[in-house]
Amino acid sequence: MTDTDRTPPATEPTDHTGMRVLTLQDCLARLGSAPVGRVAFVLDGEIAVLPVNHTLDGLDICFRTAGGSKIQAAVDGDRVSFQVDGFDPARRWGWSVLLHGTAGIVDDDQQVARLVSISRPPWVAMDASSTRWVRISTREVTGRETFGS
Amino acid sequence: MTDTDRTPPATEPTDHTGMRVLTLQDCLARLGSAPVGRVAFVLDGEIAVLPVNHTLDGLDICFRTAGGSKIQAAVDGDRVSFQVDGFDPARRWGWSVLLHGTAGIVDDDQQVARLVSISRPPWVAMDASSTRWVRISTREVTGRETFGS
Repeated sequence: MTDTDRTPPATEPTDHTGMRVLTLQDCLARLGSAPVGRVAFVLDGEIAVLPVNHTLDGLDICFRTAGGSKIQAAVDGDRVSFQVDGFDPARRWGWSVLLHGTAGIVDDDQQVARLVSISRPPWVAMDASSTRWVRISTREVTGRETFGS
Repeated sequence: MTDTDRTPPATEPTDHTGMRVLTLQDCLARLGSAPVGRVAFVLDGEIAVLPVNHTLDGLDICFRTAGGSKIQAAVDGDRVSFQVDGFDPARRWGWSVLLHGTAGIVDDDQQVARLVSISRPPWVAMDASSTRWVRISTREVTGRETFGS
């Protein structure tokens, strides 16, 4: 397959590197179906990028954490990012969705109960007393996909 | 399987959430074998997290890019992070490796030729005139793994 074969139809939007631009609807579908995503935040001058089992709640991302640094970012109301992706090396195909938002702790018991009811169980055993729910209130979502070979 | 079954042997180091702590050797092996990793950097006050096809060169991460923002982070010598992970939802098993370093453009033609010779071809068609190699000079690498079920 040549590069020419991979040229998208003129109607499909692409970015400056020739990747397909995903619609908001497509980005949300992928955020909702990915079992693992990565939350990124600044901690002591370094960027932490840590996987979590997340839940899409409307336009927001919610996740449980027993981790001190993720809770601290949420308490501080930090700007955070959240990313999901998928790829198939054999086809040189991949996609990614990146979300920018603001982290906050979910304090309301009814909200927590609702999040538990719509979420898959966490993979890591968590001490209930130290576990908190974090909500990333979404400001912007973008996504890209290669055309593969 | 109960949480008790997942308790690791006393000789294996774990973090505060009970995840196995990976050795530096194990972290480097996973950085070297992962076909895709994610470079994270701050751009206009937001954290960008973007997948790249990377090459492990000693302790450093190198990748090609035709993307303006990744090149800009490297030209500016920014602190960046690089992350790889893997997971199996059926086993509730996952691991991740996070690297902190400083990005820089690879300007030396001999270095570029060597990187091309040791790297897999990129997935995205890149215009040779705008493609640059970026090296992340590593300061710190850490990794974690769940014990799964």
